[in-house]
Amino acid sequence: MAERPSGSLTSRHFRSEMVPLPQRPADAVLLRNIFVSVAPGARAAMQGPTHRPQLLPGEVIPSSVVAEVVAAPPGGPEPGSIVGGAAGWQEYSVVPTSDIWPLERIGELSQHLGLLGRNGLTAYFGVREVAQLRAGETVVVSGAAGGVGHLAGQLARIAGARVVGITGSDEKNEVLRRRLGYPAVVNRRSPSFADDLRAACPADVDVYFDTVGGLILESVLPLLARHGRVVCCGVTAQYDLDRPPPAPAGLALQLIAKSLRMQGFLVADYLPEWGAAQRELYALQRSGELTALEEIRDGLDSAPGALIEMMAGGNIGQFTVRLAPDPAGWPS
Amino acid sequence: MAERPSGSLTSRHFRSEMVPLPQRPADAVLLRNIFVSVAPGARAAMQGPTHRPQLLPGEVIPSSVVAEVVAAPPGGPEPGSIVGGAAGWQEYSVVPTSDIWPLERIGELSQHLGLLGRNGLTAYFGVREVAQLRAGETVVVSGAAGGVGHLAGQLARIAGARVVGITGSDEKNEVLRRRLGYPAVVNRRSPSFADDLRAACPADVDVYFDTVGGLILESVLPLLARHGRVVCCGVTAQYDLDRPPPAPAGLALQLIAKSLRMQGFLVADYLPEWGAAQRELYALQRSGELTALEEIRDGLDSAPGALIEMMAGGNIGQFTVRLAPDPAGWPS
Repeated sequence: MAERPSGSLTSRHFRSEMVPLPQRPADAVLLRNIFVSVAPGARAAMQGPTHRPQLLPGEVIPSSVVAEVVAAPPGGPEPGSIVGGAAGWQEYSVVPTSDIWPLERIGELSQHLGLLGRNGLTAYFGVREVAQLRAGETVVVSGAAGGVGHLAGQLARIAGARVVGITGSDEKNEVLRRRLGYPAVVNRRSPSFADDLRAACPADVDVYFDTVGGLILESVLPLLARHGRVVCCGVTAQYDLDRPPPAPAGLALQLIAKSLRMQGFLVADYLPEWGAAQRELYALQRSGELTALEEIRDGLDSAPGALIEMMAGGNIGQFTVRLAPDPAGWPS
Repeated sequence: MAERPSGSLTSRHFRSEMVPLPQRPADAVLLRNIFVSVAPGARAAMQGPTHRPQLLPGEVIPSSVVAEVVAAPPGGPEPGSIVGGAAGWQEYSVVPTSDIWPLERIGELSQHLGLLGRNGLTAYFGVREVAQLRAGETVVVSGAAGGVGHLAGQLARIAGARVVGITGSDEKNEVLRRRLGYPAVVNRRSPSFADDLRAACPADVDVYFDTVGGLILESVLPLLARHGRVVCCGVTAQYDLDRPPPAPAGLALQLIAKSLRMQGFLVADYLPEWGAAQRELYALQRSGELTALEEIRDGLDSAPGALIEMMAGGNIGQFTVRLAPDPAGWPS
């Protein structure tokens, strides 16, 4: 990060540097990154503290990665093995051993940043655990074409819910409807958004799966059923704002009057269950029930542009940057 | 209600009328009210829709009551029996049979509007069910001297929590400390409120039991622990405002970054468990562990003044108006 952004993200906020490899501390691993993720979490870290501290100018943009282990402490992973990690937009990263994790040996390697990575797991645990979804319920998903959202909506459908997707463009909505089987879609940029949403939800809304945060909640709140749930999964809409938008006035009264639950979560809350979730996500994809969309660009220098594009609402599904060819012999 | 209030409540918003008893529909009961409750819910109904519709000028202020059945449909309660009901500030009420309920034959009759009524049950289910409180946790209670709050804080203490009470006056705080065993209290009107609260909570806050809504949440939010819970139980602070205050900016990000849960509830959600809860509340009071405070005034005309006083922050504990002497032979 070259400077802390204020307002919309531009290329000026990024800088690419060639630096010598740092010394590897005794409890750290040296990774050669193969894929790095382009995700709203990077934008969040540039803006202010989240579950990690504020990123400072000169620091590396944080990112999930899929990487090959180059060097590790004794008892650590074998050099040459492929792992997941919390690292950054770098060709090589030195990270504490505690920040890497083994990968399930399933799927394409790049999918370990999408369907089988943080996005897929967030969608999975959000729908399965946090939403406490029951068949026949109505689920509204915001950011429904995003890395998490496009999977969350499908997982809700697979669980027997009627899904209404919200995005910011008719083109995205067309993809949701035609490729992902969303029965109803709404464009949040439409001047008649609140009415469109109401029309798309003839029954009360049981779950609002919110990946964008911000003002959409105000339109969903009056539609929520008694004992409805708001799954707070992301706030992408507010990262490009200097100050986050206020939550809806009267929120607490609505929560009380309809016995609503509003709950945030992190995918790390469910660490022990990751493996089982990844195997199920993969099986759903193999059977054709779940479609994971990803776009892959090549070369580290394409990462800032991809994030800028994502924050402007330009992408569908997972956005990944490839830094090195897939290693031979994955997954078997 | 004479007119819909805008801003602070005054006597001009109320009118007392003598009217003939209405015809009793076939599925309704005629009640002679013995006690009526003075509670923030009445102010809420005057302001706008909650779980019930907006009250209109000329309509009766809604209230929980303890009443004697004067007439009932065949198969309904015996005339002369004592019941609880959702009725209003009236000497006699005609209400649907579905709006009355039997009383546990324990305690003083007036307590069925306080400790053993809606306030006690709200405190009980909020602490026991919604908060999912564990021993050793820190609980902050707002409106900690109120009808619900003064019981909620004690129930949290009994469950093994360290309780910090927030009220709007040093006098109330003194009562909390000396009579109710709150180990720490904070005055929300103090200019150093946010700092005082932080100092009163050396450990992270696990549960915020919010009976007032509004701006206090902004000061509590940064103190909440991972997996903290906000129990939304009332919004008394916002009834005297024309527009409810916005919820804190950045709320969703905080919910996500700390995996927080914010949950509203109504005491009616737990109807099947009321009896057991009432018996436990009564036993806790009998054993001296729980102190229920109540103030009783006489005559229907004292009700508006009591509500005005309550909304201005003047009372401690349950506020009840007596319309008729206790019937002979209660509770046995």
